[in-house]
Amino acid sequence: MTETLHNPNPSDLAYVPFVSVDNMMRNVRAIGAETFMRGVADYIEQDFRRWESFDKKPRIPAHAPQGVIELMPASDDEYFGFKYVNGHPGNTRTGMQTVTGFGVLSHMSTGYPVLFTEMTILTALRTAANSALAAKYLAPKNSKTMAIIGNGAQSDFQCLAFKDMLGITDIRAYDIEPAASLRLARNLAHSGLNVTICKTPEDAIEGAEIITTVTADKRYATILTDNMVGSGVHINAIGGDCPGKTELHKDILLRSDIFVELPEQTREEGELQQLDADHPVTELWKVYAGKAEGRTSDTQITLFDSVGFAIEDFSALRYVNDLLPSTGHFEKLDLLADPDDPRDLYGMVLRSDASNGDDRAA
Amino acid sequence: MTETLHNPNPSDLAYVPFVSVDNMMRNVRAIGAETFMRGVADYIEQDFRRWESFDKKPRIPAHAPQGVIELMPASDDEYFGFKYVNGHPGNTRTGMQTVTGFGVLSHMSTGYPVLFTEMTILTALRTAANSALAAKYLAPKNSKTMAIIGNGAQSDFQCLAFKDMLGITDIRAYDIEPAASLRLARNLAHSGLNVTICKTPEDAIEGAEIITTVTADKRYATILTDNMVGSGVHINAIGGDCPGKTELHKDILLRSDIFVELPEQTREEGELQQLDADHPVTELWKVYAGKAEGRTSDTQITLFDSVGFAIEDFSALRYVNDLLPSTGHFEKLDLLADPDDPRDLYGMVLRSDASNGDDRAA
Repeated sequence: MTETLHNPNPSDLAYVPFVSVDNMMRNVRAIGAETFMRGVADYIEQDFRRWESFDKKPRIPAHAPQGVIELMPASDDEYFGFKYVNGHPGNTRTGMQTVTGFGVLSHMSTGYPVLFTEMTILTALRTAANSALAAKYLAPKNSKTMAIIGNGAQSDFQCLAFKDMLGITDIRAYDIEPAASLRLARNLAHSGLNVTICKTPEDAIEGAEIITTVTADKRYATILTDNMVGSGVHINAIGGDCPGKTELHKDILLRSDIFVELPEQTREEGELQQLDADHPVTELWKVYAGKAEGRTSDTQITLFDSVGFAIEDFSALRYVNDLLPSTGHFEKLDLLADPDDPRDLYGMVLRSDASNGDDRAA
Repeated sequence: MTETLHNPNPSDLAYVPFVSVDNMMRNVRAIGAETFMRGVADYIEQDFRRWESFDKKPRIPAHAPQGVIELMPASDDEYFGFKYVNGHPGNTRTGMQTVTGFGVLSHMSTGYPVLFTEMTILTALRTAANSALAAKYLAPKNSKTMAIIGNGAQSDFQCLAFKDMLGITDIRAYDIEPAASLRLARNLAHSGLNVTICKTPEDAIEGAEIITTVTADKRYATILTDNMVGSGVHINAIGGDCPGKTELHKDILLRSDIFVELPEQTREEGELQQLDADHPVTELWKVYAGKAEGRTSDTQITLFDSVGFAIEDFSALRYVNDLLPSTGHFEKLDLLADPDDPRDLYGMVLRSDASNGDDRAA
């Protein structure tokens, strides 16, 4: 639908397509979460392959005792995109979300926004999409079983993306809270995946070619110890996403070939926090672009130390922008002042009364 | 009005108040542009007085051959605010605006946005509000006549703010295009201001205690030459707002006491570009806070070298946020995903179908 908010009749130039949470869900349902994530993965792969064509900036954070608000901008010659995202762990105590987000995509040539969208759901989709994309280059061929340790909000998306993009058939789920695993199994009941709920992390990784860790622990934790991880596996480490938070024992990292998004960011936020600042890593974009090797042997342990980067959001925004014309699941916001005479902004305000009728009627 | 976009029934936490261009005009009309600007000026004065309590960041720019897109964030202990603004001079050739903007205000304690608003009109209001506020500290007492050189989109707001906050009664208007002056005079016809259209800048500044320059020239131009400016006047230099663009002859600057928002920004973007990097200036916030003197003599030439700063946008966002409950001129956006179980984001998408009905109906 393309409902427009009440407005006399500004030119179409004044309107910016808006995807509400409700319409994001409609878009996901319209094509299916798996197709959506595959599409986002394609855009991420395209964009990472031209990594050097982007203006890449570090996140711009604003810190409070309760959490952080970040702006994550990225741009190329055609588009400027940014995501607003917050992280406030204490929010759940008052029924609010720990993380929420929204984003904007604009044309570099005009500066006009072309898309304004919720990004809480979209971020979950793009994170899983890039995990599965990285695994296509890093996981053992014909992997069938994935262990997923931490069965929270991101775990469903991870399982579905790996099923769709890698052909995973079996999920071995573990969470410190059994209810979380039951929730995950219930949501995946009709997905075609066989979900086994496991009582321990050791049990979960039994026979898994891929180990996904996506716990919400906000401390230095050790979800996996060295002796648990056999040769040849791919570790998809999603959880570590801020300074002071890791999931893997340092010895595992030392046995692994580590792949990252933006090295300087991962060294601060990812599992890499535990290693020396000059520990060798491979940039994922180089693997996608064929400039660096992914998995090179059956015994190698590969590790994607995921923390999330602005270009993944940029790619997700581009994907949604291209998807909307076919689904029609968006609204239009009267966001940009568009006076007939650009020099007469005040005149537009002064005379809008006539076209709008009594403002009390609003 | 508080129309809500179609959505089953998410908690109020999912909604973010949105002020469209239409509703911004309704808000301005509801209380009047002069009252609105006086209110914004009060908030700017409050915020500048506690300057040191802000986390101040330089603008984050993304440059294209056609123009620039900037994010302007600022935060204190309570609020985070940012403005998105673009500047693309070539846009007018295709019927688009050179400058458009929107902004967001959020609670630092939760990271949740509390206001999303258009900022094209709001920026014009806050710019004039701060010009008049600065003039209260810098202009000759009992100033009655203001010359305004450059009669474009910002000029109306400047004249109204100076009438309301300083008691200006007479406007002497000059623009290189007479049509622009006629437009300004027409818009101010019922404002109570006496507007005289002048044929030259020299004519315009005749007898003026305050000289406002607000031309759109994108080059180094000399709107005022040294011999035109007598002692004792206050110069309100608004136009210079990017590197490579100035309005005043260097000799005028050398005779003036110069007041600025953020020195490092003004030295790059303002009239200050013409002077040595260490030329003494006074920070406006210190004048508002009583930590530095404004005008100290009748013969002194005071110059506000205005380029605009993020805290002014922060103050404007706070003002609108506090104004909305009384006017009701806003809508609510379904922007924040708010699943019943924070861990069940995918379940919310999966089961939203039932509550929303067939998504094709959207």
